[in-house]
Amino acid sequence: MAISFEVTARCPETGARVGKLHTPHGSISTPVFMPVGTQATVKTMAPEELKKLGAEIILSNTYHLYLRPGDDLIAEAGGLHAFMNWDRAILTDSGGFQIFSLDAFRKITEEGVTFRSHIDGSEHFISPEKAIEIQTNLGADIIMAFDECIPYPCTYEYARESTLRTTRWAERCLTAHHSQKQALFGIVQGGMYRDLRELSARDLVALDFPGYAVGGLSVGEPKALMYEVLDYTVPLLPADKPRYLMGVGTPDCILESVARGIDMFDCVLPTRIARNGTVFTRRGRLVVRNAEYARDFRPLDPECSCYTCRNYSRAYIRHLIKANEILGLRLTTIHNLAFLLNLMAEIREHIVRGSFAAFKAEYLGGIINE
Amino acid sequence: MAISFEVTARCPETGARVGKLHTPHGSISTPVFMPVGTQATVKTMAPEELKKLGAEIILSNTYHLYLRPGDDLIAEAGGLHAFMNWDRAILTDSGGFQIFSLDAFRKITEEGVTFRSHIDGSEHFISPEKAIEIQTNLGADIIMAFDECIPYPCTYEYARESTLRTTRWAERCLTAHHSQKQALFGIVQGGMYRDLRELSARDLVALDFPGYAVGGLSVGEPKALMYEVLDYTVPLLPADKPRYLMGVGTPDCILESVARGIDMFDCVLPTRIARNGTVFTRRGRLVVRNAEYARDFRPLDPECSCYTCRNYSRAYIRHLIKANEILGLRLTTIHNLAFLLNLMAEIREHIVRGSFAAFKAEYLGGIINE
Repeated sequence: MAISFEVTARCPETGARVGKLHTPHGSISTPVFMPVGTQATVKTMAPEELKKLGAEIILSNTYHLYLRPGDDLIAEAGGLHAFMNWDRAILTDSGGFQIFSLDAFRKITEEGVTFRSHIDGSEHFISPEKAIEIQTNLGADIIMAFDECIPYPCTYEYARESTLRTTRWAERCLTAHHSQKQALFGIVQGGMYRDLRELSARDLVALDFPGYAVGGLSVGEPKALMYEVLDYTVPLLPADKPRYLMGVGTPDCILESVARGIDMFDCVLPTRIARNGTVFTRRGRLVVRNAEYARDFRPLDPECSCYTCRNYSRAYIRHLIKANEILGLRLTTIHNLAFLLNLMAEIREHIVRGSFAAFKAEYLGGIINE
Repeated sequence: MAISFEVTARCPETGARVGKLHTPHGSISTPVFMPVGTQATVKTMAPEELKKLGAEIILSNTYHLYLRPGDDLIAEAGGLHAFMNWDRAILTDSGGFQIFSLDAFRKITEEGVTFRSHIDGSEHFISPEKAIEIQTNLGADIIMAFDECIPYPCTYEYARESTLRTTRWAERCLTAHHSQKQALFGIVQGGMYRDLRELSARDLVALDFPGYAVGGLSVGEPKALMYEVLDYTVPLLPADKPRYLMGVGTPDCILESVARGIDMFDCVLPTRIARNGTVFTRRGRLVVRNAEYARDFRPLDPECSCYTCRNYSRAYIRHLIKANEILGLRLTTIHNLAFLLNLMAEIREHIVRGSFAAFKAEYLGGIINE
């Protein structure tokens, strides 16, 4: 087995749990947030900086790396870990989400998906087998089955057709997957339809993947609906295997999802809003590029002890961002990642101490601007 | 005195010398290269990274900081050191070079210069007194007299008129300068005319500045002409005071200028070409963004031991730059600055050991692509 997972503590009042996920590139404390390194780099960050923040696993995107620089080139470099100088764990998605998010022409058949590159318009075809081949070349510790992420809203008929096809694709991924060093996770789909989620979960659990993702959420639906889907989907997944909620990464959604038994998260939002000059604080988001912070010499978040908050003022960071200086984007990115990784550590600590439910209520009550 | 300077070793064959420049923010070994932090940040770099590279002093630009975020705001932050979290030495230029490089409307009178902001087109007026006031607000350890950088080519008549005015402005700067914590350097002008350089140097030396810059070089003239001007200008400057050649920063020009008795350098070129994907190597420049490096898994410069060259391949850095990833610009910038700062350390060592002339000849002979 490429990975193993153990649950070490449970919250008595919610579904929250603490665990250890062991991979060939180190052990990961869960619940975990995985910073996103789409193009073999977490935007603006160096690997050592991610380590200092406590990142134990990052996510990278198969779709992007397949197109540029190419998974064959990365294999030649010795795999993604060597290519990008990151010796901790990596998870790659299957490319499905990006392909189905493309505006460019695409065609879905039983065999796979035809799409055009966002870089040069060239035509490409990815099947479940091809997605596994690419991810084998990339060499991440955890790889994902090739799925269709159903849009929201979506008709029941299409959602059903797509969900059943995603399950057939998952079987083909399993068949194509041979690496002993990589763990292949299945992805539960089903849109916002309870019976389809149940169908998807039942079929995938029967295939005995070492871990399961819940896909197709955080795609534009109301948060309450996402929590509802989690309420009935998570209990269908094996309690002894890691559960990964794809594409979620705001403090409130993380807290609510951890309470529902989710172990793993990823999201581009923390790093993307950072580059737009927006940062997390304990009371919600702060748009540091706004004029009101021009002469504000306090740190981004007075309660934060990250590198950025220890050394730089809102006024300086605002100046850097207004002047298009890269250091500004680095400092806001460091803060947002530190903020989320520290939140995950707090969450784990409170689960272990039995105080998670109270912590969650207090935290959510303190958010003014989300 | 805000600074003091001592020459500790001299090359027996050339004018090269090693010295120590003591400032309120630490001592600097000369000959020194000062990385340029135009907008209160050395582009892409954090202060700790500059320290790791051995940078003991950086340069920042008065013109840019006056316009944005404003020298009054920086004074309110506690000065430039506090604002940008840099506790080593800083030199600010006078703003003259940037103003005279502007395409925007400008008018020079005896009183000063009227110009338009490159940011919002607003009209501004800077006199020698105003340049000192701004630099006092910024609080750098070394500040520069307000001068006109004469373009190349230039008529003798205009060069003479401008040079005499720059000398009068230098006197006004001295009169306006009161800070005991800041050292004000004079700038020798005179274009490419020997008698004007001699006139400028003689008049400025009579004003007894604690250091002297040679300005108006590296403005488009042939390198041989620049060396010729240095040949007759540097000997006119006091031997016991630091000599600063403004705007020079390629390995060959640094070696030739050190041989002519220059102690200090600054230039945006190393960091600017880095962001274009061009790096220094011992054999000259390498354009790592070129297709030929797509599958080149060697470091940028196999003879370099910087962070970038220890950890990343040409293929990875090329990928990052092609994919517009900030880490690519960080890695090439780190390398180019490390390369130049290491070169300065080697130069100092060879001067001390008496082998500078041989080192210079060997180095210049090895450059294939400059």
